[in-house]
Amino acid sequence: MNTVTLRCDEIATAIGAELRGDGATVVTAIASIGTAKAGSITFITGKKFADALRATEATAVILPEAFADETSAIRLVMENPYLGYAKLTGLWSSKLYGSGVSGVHDSAIVASTAVLEAGVSVAPQAVVESGARLARNVSIGAGAYIGEGVSIGAGTVIHPGATILRDCTVGRDGEIHSGAVVGADGFGFAPAPDGWEKIHQLGAVVIGDRVSIGACTTVDRGALEDTVISDGVILDNHIQVAHNVIIGQNTAIAGCTGIAGSTTIGANCRIGGAVSIVGHIAICDDVLITANSFVNRSVVQPGSYSSGFPLETSAQWRKNAVRLQRLDEISRQVGKLKS
Amino acid sequence: MNTVTLRCDEIATAIGAELRGDGATVVTAIASIGTAKAGSITFITGKKFADALRATEATAVILPEAFADETSAIRLVMENPYLGYAKLTGLWSSKLYGSGVSGVHDSAIVASTAVLEAGVSVAPQAVVESGARLARNVSIGAGAYIGEGVSIGAGTVIHPGATILRDCTVGRDGEIHSGAVVGADGFGFAPAPDGWEKIHQLGAVVIGDRVSIGACTTVDRGALEDTVISDGVILDNHIQVAHNVIIGQNTAIAGCTGIAGSTTIGANCRIGGAVSIVGHIAICDDVLITANSFVNRSVVQPGSYSSGFPLETSAQWRKNAVRLQRLDEISRQVGKLKS
Amino acid sequence: MNTVTLRCDEIATAIGAELRGDGATVVTAIASIGTAKAGSITFITGKKFADALRATEATAVILPEAFADETSAIRLVMENPYLGYAKLTGLWSSKLYGSGVSGVHDSAIVASTAVLEAGVSVAPQAVVESGARLARNVSIGAGAYIGEGVSIGAGTVIHPGATILRDCTVGRDGEIHSGAVVGADGFGFAPAPDGWEKIHQLGAVVIGDRVSIGACTTVDRGALEDTVISDGVILDNHIQVAHNVIIGQNTAIAGCTGIAGSTTIGANCRIGGAVSIVGHIAICDDVLITANSFVNRSVVQPGSYSSGFPLETSAQWRKNAVRLQRLDEISRQVGKLKS
Repeated sequence: MNTVTLRCDEIATAIGAELRGDGATVVTAIASIGTAKAGSITFITGKKFADALRATEATAVILPEAFADETSAIRLVMENPYLGYAKLTGLWSSKLYGSGVSGVHDSAIVASTAVLEAGVSVAPQAVVESGARLARNVSIGAGAYIGEGVSIGAGTVIHPGATILRDCTVGRDGEIHSGAVVGADGFGFAPAPDGWEKIHQLGAVVIGDRVSIGACTTVDRGALEDTVISDGVILDNHIQVAHNVIIGQNTAIAGCTGIAGSTTIGANCRIGGAVSIVGHIAICDDVLITANSFVNRSVVQPGSYSSGFPLETSAQWRKNAVRLQRLDEISRQVGKLKS
Repeated sequence: MNTVTLRCDEIATAIGAELRGDGATVVTAIASIGTAKAGSITFITGKKFADALRATEATAVILPEAFADETSAIRLVMENPYLGYAKLTGLWSSKLYGSGVSGVHDSAIVASTAVLEAGVSVAPQAVVESGARLARNVSIGAGAYIGEGVSIGAGTVIHPGATILRDCTVGRDGEIHSGAVVGADGFGFAPAPDGWEKIHQLGAVVIGDRVSIGACTTVDRGALEDTVISDGVILDNHIQVAHNVIIGQNTAIAGCTGIAGSTTIGANCRIGGAVSIVGHIAICDDVLITANSFVNRSVVQPGSYSSGFPLETSAQWRKNAVRLQRLDEISRQVGKLKS
Repeated sequence: MNTVTLRCDEIATAIGAELRGDGATVVTAIASIGTAKAGSITFITGKKFADALRATEATAVILPEAFADETSAIRLVMENPYLGYAKLTGLWSSKLYGSGVSGVHDSAIVASTAVLEAGVSVAPQAVVESGARLARNVSIGAGAYIGEGVSIGAGTVIHPGATILRDCTVGRDGEIHSGAVVGADGFGFAPAPDGWEKIHQLGAVVIGDRVSIGACTTVDRGALEDTVISDGVILDNHIQVAHNVIIGQNTAIAGCTGIAGSTTIGANCRIGGAVSIVGHIAICDDVLITANSFVNRSVVQPGSYSSGFPLETSAQWRKNAVRLQRLDEISRQVGKLKS
């Protein structure tokens, strides 16, 4: 891997922090407060890291004003050091990897009717079908597939091996990770006398700006109308978004969560990992759902929701699980005893 | 996207409905009863849509006889309008997308010993290995992989980026969606003094006719015998079918469900999303399992089965979860109080 | 499929068993004890198969000493017949499929700065980026992607369509199955005034020797430090390993399990399918977690752990689930009755 060398004043400017200390000093690594060595830049978010701050060997620290006098390191003072750290990783990444090469690799297959704006890159073995539109600086990874009529907004990165099927739309400044599939057919079948009759899925998927779709996440196309992922949504890996789901702005969903068909999720929700959400319900804005929950009904009030059986020893679980299957009976016995 | 224009009499014939009204009238959209505008065709399945039917602006409605007098729209009368709607989407899709182009794209790699019948298409960057047999009108999507000795029945569509590994068999008129993997090694290892010894998986996967396999769904090859997906089975996205599982005819399984090794599932079952099914059990025919259930034992009677902790506020959940871990003790206290 | 013919003495030598009977006799199939016909070799592990052993038509049986007198078949006697069976499948597989062809297919794209040692094969449509290092006898499947600076140890097999992203390291004698994604960005975002700011993931993934990664399994790269999969770990399909997870030696994890960020799992653990494990916890060595459990806390003692609501009829479940949501209240009533 290449290495990065950055001056502290350069960093302060890039992340919007106030520099206190020698701005010409360079750092060559980012590290967490617990492991940072001399030559590193680190960050703290609050008082639970105060002791670590006093002990750190880091050359520079991004921190809030309240801690600016607690270290002899170079300080980059800002209200939200975690956001500063995030911005720093972006700067670091751009130095480390550069902006890549634009242009279409010889082995890629790009239809003659596809429109590629300036700065677009199409990596080896990728396929861009007829009528696709790739806006400025879009990057199509190796082996990725961009179907007929797909539109991708400026600056969006499609990672190697991602698949975007016909007529789907992706906004600007987003990312779709490897193994993700956008626009596969929703799971729609009508019972027929001799089995199942497929309901061909005539909608598409519409993805907003600044959306991140994780590895091996699937977003199915709508039956008649579109499946919608709004601006600023972030989806982790292995998420299933079924047909005609609508996800509101800036909602974050952790890995392995599944959302069944036609469910609507509001804006600014945070949904944990391995949550299963049934179809045809609505979750309002500002809902937090903890990991492993089973969302079997609509949620109409903002707040935090949970379900799930916590871990215990298998011996204890076997006893409790047997009782759980008789809980209604136990409860009725309690009712009788009370009366 | 192209548009579709269809005459009502053409539709009635195609879906097997009795036309009442002017068959020469055309429609240019399919819509649900709640959103249909003039120029659209819609459908209703029963009386819960009666008010919407009276209010609709739709040009044509697929409906059962009982409602044929409740609208001034053109009527397409049939016993099962939902099936009619499904057939209509198929007709619509074929008009919208055509039947595609047959032939092998220059960038595809097809082994000289592979056998391709008439009408087969192999899209850019796909690979078809030696000894593979693709029957009439099979379509292999861009970047898909068809391993050595794989056999695919007439009319089956393999979507972009799907992977079918060596010696697996897929029946006719099926679909395998993007990111699906058929025939990866089952998870078989023997404990050895220094770790795990791989049990090489010598079986394959046998998939029947009219089977649909969803995006990122995996069906592992068998250890000694084959993993079997019977005719008419429909599998949604992100399903895991472990080695030596057998799934009976016309069973439908929703997304994110996992089935552990050597389990047998009967015919005509309906299994919800995010269900986890342990290995080495049997589920009989005609079983319905609701979403998010944990199937920890065989099911020997047809019927509906469930498990799972319903959603509550996190505050309430924390209280209940603590009690749940003491349920055996609570239950014994109730027993003592009774006596 | 080709067929295999092996002499019993050849097998005995290969698997480390003591031969009793005519070593020149050949077998042409491996089968389980319940289905083995004449011409097959089978195995038994203990007395629960004693009746089947006496009834078997198999030509040869791998078995422990205690059963060596209970059959007239050719016997291959060893302490651990299941391990013997595993080794036999490896021998069988190598006869059936051979060792493949080495060399780079014309349609593969291999960067000029990639280093390929002797015996490396790169299949059609695969991509190997600059600075990648493929040690002796590495096999890269069709359409697989090997990113910049990736290093893969001797003998490791990357199956068709697997994706290994930049700077990740894979040890020797491992397997990465189709659809797996190693090194996608961890799910790291900082809240910003206008949505989410991406935390660029600057770590990589380090995978040890003899590791197996299942189909559609994802292992995300670390934020600052690496995600680590130790030697001998076996991961089934559809597993999510989030950023900065560390998994200890020889731990086995079944399909559909998700592990959230920064969690550490010890050595020699066995984790069932569809388990969800929260982030920032530690599971010690030698822990068994049964299928479908929710691991919501650290585990500090070796042993077996469980959670989850067992299956019941939907009618019974509805009654019990209602009570479950009132469990705290019921429990308090019991407390009052006791006093």
